[in-house]
Amino acid sequence: MMGYDYMHRVYNFSPGPAALPLPVLEQARDEFLDWQGNGMSVMEMGHRTASFEALAAQTEVDLRELLNIPSNYKVLFLSGGARVQFAMIPLNLLGDYGTADYVDTGIWAEIAIKEAQKYGRVNTVSLATWQTDPNAAYLHYTSNETIDGIQFHYIPETKAPLVCDMSSDILCQPIDVSRFGLIYASAQKNIGPAGLTVVIVRDDLLDRASKLTPTVFHYKTQAEKQSLYNTPPTYSWYLAGLVFQWLKKQGGLKAIAEINHRKAKKLYQAIDKSEFYHNPVQPDFRSIMNIPFTLKKPELDTLFLQEALQAGLANLKGHNLVGGMRASIYNAIPEEAVDALIAFMRDFETRYG
Amino acid sequence: MMGYDYMHRVYNFSPGPAALPLPVLEQARDEFLDWQGNGMSVMEMGHRTASFEALAAQTEVDLRELLNIPSNYKVLFLSGGARVQFAMIPLNLLGDYGTADYVDTGIWAEIAIKEAQKYGRVNTVSLATWQTDPNAAYLHYTSNETIDGIQFHYIPETKAPLVCDMSSDILCQPIDVSRFGLIYASAQKNIGPAGLTVVIVRDDLLDRASKLTPTVFHYKTQAEKQSLYNTPPTYSWYLAGLVFQWLKKQGGLKAIAEINHRKAKKLYQAIDKSEFYHNPVQPDFRSIMNIPFTLKKPELDTLFLQEALQAGLANLKGHNLVGGMRASIYNAIPEEAVDALIAFMRDFETRYG
Repeated sequence: MMGYDYMHRVYNFSPGPAALPLPVLEQARDEFLDWQGNGMSVMEMGHRTASFEALAAQTEVDLRELLNIPSNYKVLFLSGGARVQFAMIPLNLLGDYGTADYVDTGIWAEIAIKEAQKYGRVNTVSLATWQTDPNAAYLHYTSNETIDGIQFHYIPETKAPLVCDMSSDILCQPIDVSRFGLIYASAQKNIGPAGLTVVIVRDDLLDRASKLTPTVFHYKTQAEKQSLYNTPPTYSWYLAGLVFQWLKKQGGLKAIAEINHRKAKKLYQAIDKSEFYHNPVQPDFRSIMNIPFTLKKPELDTLFLQEALQAGLANLKGHNLVGGMRASIYNAIPEEAVDALIAFMRDFETRYG
Repeated sequence: MMGYDYMHRVYNFSPGPAALPLPVLEQARDEFLDWQGNGMSVMEMGHRTASFEALAAQTEVDLRELLNIPSNYKVLFLSGGARVQFAMIPLNLLGDYGTADYVDTGIWAEIAIKEAQKYGRVNTVSLATWQTDPNAAYLHYTSNETIDGIQFHYIPETKAPLVCDMSSDILCQPIDVSRFGLIYASAQKNIGPAGLTVVIVRDDLLDRASKLTPTVFHYKTQAEKQSLYNTPPTYSWYLAGLVFQWLKKQGGLKAIAEINHRKAKKLYQAIDKSEFYHNPVQPDFRSIMNIPFTLKKPELDTLFLQEALQAGLANLKGHNLVGGMRASIYNAIPEEAVDALIAFMRDFETRYG
């Protein structure tokens, strides 16, 4: 609409920071210099102005509606990402318990465990044996492992409050928030730009914090101040709000889940049907957000990535720890992008398989 | 250039998040959907991609050049704002010392003191008596108090390493970085959007951290990883880079300092010459960034703000703790904005004084 050359946009399969919905970016660009007649960018606006407070409040209302968050949960918009919460969760929640259960699902769970061990005892729970500590302050798990391409498709049963790192699959489908004690998610996959974390926390968990918890990350303090105790990452908050409105326009989480499952199913089918591509994850644990795959001829990895980029398919390189390829197909990735990827993969296999 | 209606832009005297230079905003808007032919927004780009790493490195180079940062200092780009550092500075620097000196300059210093007391002993130093602890790990001061409008125009002499919160006056004029152990500044005044903090730290202070320091805020870890240990607030980092380039185009800090001193001098003169406006700060400590002033008839405060806004002069309300008015005139505020404010103040005084 402004003469901008959209031909340059690629399909971006980045694991995070990740693609944002095009209509969100277009709106943000159009109001970049003047938000709603305020004569300034959202990022130039004080966080305690009436305009920003209204934006912040609406963003929370929209997220509550999307996730159907019960009224006995607070929603916090905090700075930093999930790794900040890896420290702040034990600081806020261990209280006098001393021990927490951490499910070892993969690489991200292991980083969370290592950080929690600074602040208390960790009982590592394996998916196979599931031996929890009867006195654990909480049980922590990672609902989706971006690097391994593993996702929980059920909510674990626990006695201890359930704490979930949903950084890479929040908002990809409806969930029953009432089953959780705390949900947290860094923004840079399904919410908005990096530098923001959403924390959804049940009221009874707000007041357990260690005195060593930095005040800006003290859940009770931030809950009492509507996350405005300090200057929050205001521009990321605004973009998160636009993403939530976009999701509502798509029909909410039920509608986006249908699309997400269809996208993932297609891609897994294309991989499974082929002799050339391989995904090692058990079907029950396959992620609908991050789909790693390997080529039968790993010596072709570089060529695959080069030709993919020429075809407008970017950021398909797998994580260094596992190699191969990975397609991250978060909410903002349209179905056409997955179709284009599958077509390219078939063509590449035909030529080099 | 894109048919955007600039008539709506106001002069924005917000204390922070604050105005950004218009050319920076225009460039960011123009490349919002496609940064340098990558086919995506900077905010959609992985932080470990070659493109982002080059941007990040260039941003550091530009900041080093602007501030003439010696090579034995590391520059970190961390998430969160100054309040996060209020906790992270004692965690990283107290080490076995146990005590730190904190100069009590005003409201922000007091918040920093309260947070530091969670992690060790604080010896509060008053400007009048200047009684420091001979064994202090460091001496902390706030170079500019946004609420009180107080600024240090000299660098204190200390035995302990000097730690300075420069959130609201970094880059406003040249400083001798070599006099400091550590300088930190949240972005939302003179650097970029909220959610980013710059930390400039001397090498010998990197390895004193308490084991309780969250890894993402551990200076040594982040220094070793070029601040990419975790996903940083990439978009704010990019905008900081554009601001640094803009500053270089203005002629660097010497040139911007001349403008800043001229802007402040004009406004203080207008206040001092008038019988209607008043600034209570001693001339030697007056801030060139934040200029609070009161009206002789405080019952006219609301009218003053309303008429100012109608004249395109926004966010002049003083902080609730001190009342009255405040003009924050950071680097991005052009001299014309100060001229317009002074003209408005004179006119208002003529009509109501």
